[in-house]
Amino acid sequence: MTDLAGFYQNWRRGRALEPIPLDSPVDVQDLQTPALLIDLDVFEANLRKMQAYLDSVGIALRAHTKMHKCPIVARKQVEAGARGVCAAKITEAEVMADGGIEDILITSPLASVDKLNRFIALRRESPGVKVVVDTVQTAAALNERAAAEGFTAEVFVDVDPGLGRTGIAPGVSAVELVETVADASHLGFAGLQMYAGHCMHIEGHAARQQKYTRVMAPGRETLDLLADRGIEVPVFSGGGTGTYNMEATLGLVNELQAGSYAFMDIEYRDIGGESSNQFLDFEVSLFVLATAISQPQQRLITVDAGFKSMASDKMPPQFRDVEGVVFHWGGDEHGIVQLNNPSREIGLGNKLPLLTPHCDPTVNLHDYYFPYRDGQVTEIWPITARGFSL
Amino acid sequence: MTDLAGFYQNWRRGRALEPIPLDSPVDVQDLQTPALLIDLDVFEANLRKMQAYLDSVGIALRAHTKMHKCPIVARKQVEAGARGVCAAKITEAEVMADGGIEDILITSPLASVDKLNRFIALRRESPGVKVVVDTVQTAAALNERAAAEGFTAEVFVDVDPGLGRTGIAPGVSAVELVETVADASHLGFAGLQMYAGHCMHIEGHAARQQKYTRVMAPGRETLDLLADRGIEVPVFSGGGTGTYNMEATLGLVNELQAGSYAFMDIEYRDIGGESSNQFLDFEVSLFVLATAISQPQQRLITVDAGFKSMASDKMPPQFRDVEGVVFHWGGDEHGIVQLNNPSREIGLGNKLPLLTPHCDPTVNLHDYYFPYRDGQVTEIWPITARGFSL
Repeated sequence: MTDLAGFYQNWRRGRALEPIPLDSPVDVQDLQTPALLIDLDVFEANLRKMQAYLDSVGIALRAHTKMHKCPIVARKQVEAGARGVCAAKITEAEVMADGGIEDILITSPLASVDKLNRFIALRRESPGVKVVVDTVQTAAALNERAAAEGFTAEVFVDVDPGLGRTGIAPGVSAVELVETVADASHLGFAGLQMYAGHCMHIEGHAARQQKYTRVMAPGRETLDLLADRGIEVPVFSGGGTGTYNMEATLGLVNELQAGSYAFMDIEYRDIGGESSNQFLDFEVSLFVLATAISQPQQRLITVDAGFKSMASDKMPPQFRDVEGVVFHWGGDEHGIVQLNNPSREIGLGNKLPLLTPHCDPTVNLHDYYFPYRDGQVTEIWPITARGFSL
Repeated sequence: MTDLAGFYQNWRRGRALEPIPLDSPVDVQDLQTPALLIDLDVFEANLRKMQAYLDSVGIALRAHTKMHKCPIVARKQVEAGARGVCAAKITEAEVMADGGIEDILITSPLASVDKLNRFIALRRESPGVKVVVDTVQTAAALNERAAAEGFTAEVFVDVDPGLGRTGIAPGVSAVELVETVADASHLGFAGLQMYAGHCMHIEGHAARQQKYTRVMAPGRETLDLLADRGIEVPVFSGGGTGTYNMEATLGLVNELQAGSYAFMDIEYRDIGGESSNQFLDFEVSLFVLATAISQPQQRLITVDAGFKSMASDKMPPQFRDVEGVVFHWGGDEHGIVQLNNPSREIGLGNKLPLLTPHCDPTVNLHDYYFPYRDGQVTEIWPITARGFSL
């Protein structure tokens, strides 16, 4: 028997936060499938490359944990030099706090009483946790609760870059909200958030940069209006993997909210880079290992991974090292592989890595990562915040 | 420290199998969102209706647990009269066995050594567990392992209805495999499986019946060939929610593998019924409760549920009780609701139930069901096999 609060508490506290060490290394081929793999050499190179680049242009990294849902990964990002992390939801922030991350920004506004109370409870135990606000009402409600607790809650004002998802309109409305926050007795104005999610996947570097510059222009105007009023904006948080090398030129974002760069996926690879029609600045380090389980027709072979193992909101997956084949979704549990002119034979029982279409919702389907180096897995990483969409 | 076998064992054994009772009833509106709801009155009516219909035509029900992933739901189906259950994957079968279900058929073939061994280990503890085979090689491998254990493993021969996903070709190939199974010292021939997944969602009852009849014709020919050789087929397992009321006329399937009828979804509702352009034989009992969290523009309101809370392989979700609005995916965590001519006002903080596009992969995103009656939740059901795609 439990009450609802106790249930939510158990749900959170029951989560594993640390790697599970294996008593002897396991070959990737000995994993049961579907299994979510991380190629550690590629993953670590991605972390180093992003951090080195951002250091060189003086932009801080606030790595987005909605992508990987894993405090082990978050700690590696912070160890590599990230200022802190983002969380899309409060439950993700709780897991990151439990996992030892101090500086956490919740990037979606909270609008219900239960979630505001949950934020305050988290802020009580983790003073570095921040949240965005996009209405005067929520700012007032947060201030009242923070006052009752006797602390100052740091908040970012979320500004809508025309995406129409969250955020207050730029310009006067945003300025009014910033003033409300700045004037509130128990709120600290930490900065602006303006995340242009609709620009990240525009194909072609030039086209992406052009639209991104246009979309972010109202952010500049808002900054100017605030400057006119003598309000300093300590941090301008936004951008992502798709715009990481455009921010320095734009000169607006000084804290990058990148997530996908660590794992990458087909969707991001296909947006194109500065000097290539593929975006290869970061390499794919995340794979779903699948097994060929049936060959009902000569030119078709079926693998044991479908909608329940890989995100289905975008394109289908692709094999890492087999060409001349086409992956068709075969429903919830299967993929049907059309063997046009396969570059290698695929036999029943073979285990093959697949590039995932979209990393974030793929990760959210799995309980564990199987990180490997030189083909060997030595520990397993729980995906602690998997399914934590609250 | 653990070895890989111990890791897989802990992963399985760590799963909760029983309802979590709440010490006092909770109003649905007091749940934190996103939350996966079951309307118990509708759900129970669906179970009764399917069972009563199948009883009236003399077809057994083998409810598919890939849809709900929950032994609590499976037990209710068996209590209502189902012969047993299906599982798409061996880990689902393990969870159902752990939850007290005896008669379990694994509907996907196993083709790797690790999975065959895992099946044998499960069969050792649960004699009612069966699996399909679709190659002579797998039948031989299973027979060898069963002989070493000293038991007879019941297997179904999986026949491909032209879907090209799993199964051996109907006709002579299927007959040869049945003979291999029937002649094997430690295999029992339990019957044929022929699941025409590509017919379930054909729009229009007449069109669906026409194609289904054509697609299943090779099943009849295979049965005739087997009869010629004096081989009796005890069970012909197949069909689903979309063909449940066509099987009696067809006279082939005597064990229905239906899953979605219990919860229903938009995809199934839209296939059309015998006397309506909507399939309303079973009502929707599954909903995702979401909260309105932001209103960046006057005609848009954003809810806190996206690709990580609802299946995205099909159409977008719809509100249960708000018309005149359109749900657009807003990415992994959000839905952007276009307020064309809303039948009721949606305010920030409001919690609203959504019909899910496709129930199976939606369920697989959630850790818990919140079943309710008269608006009150008295216990929470763990979705025990969630994420068990192995």
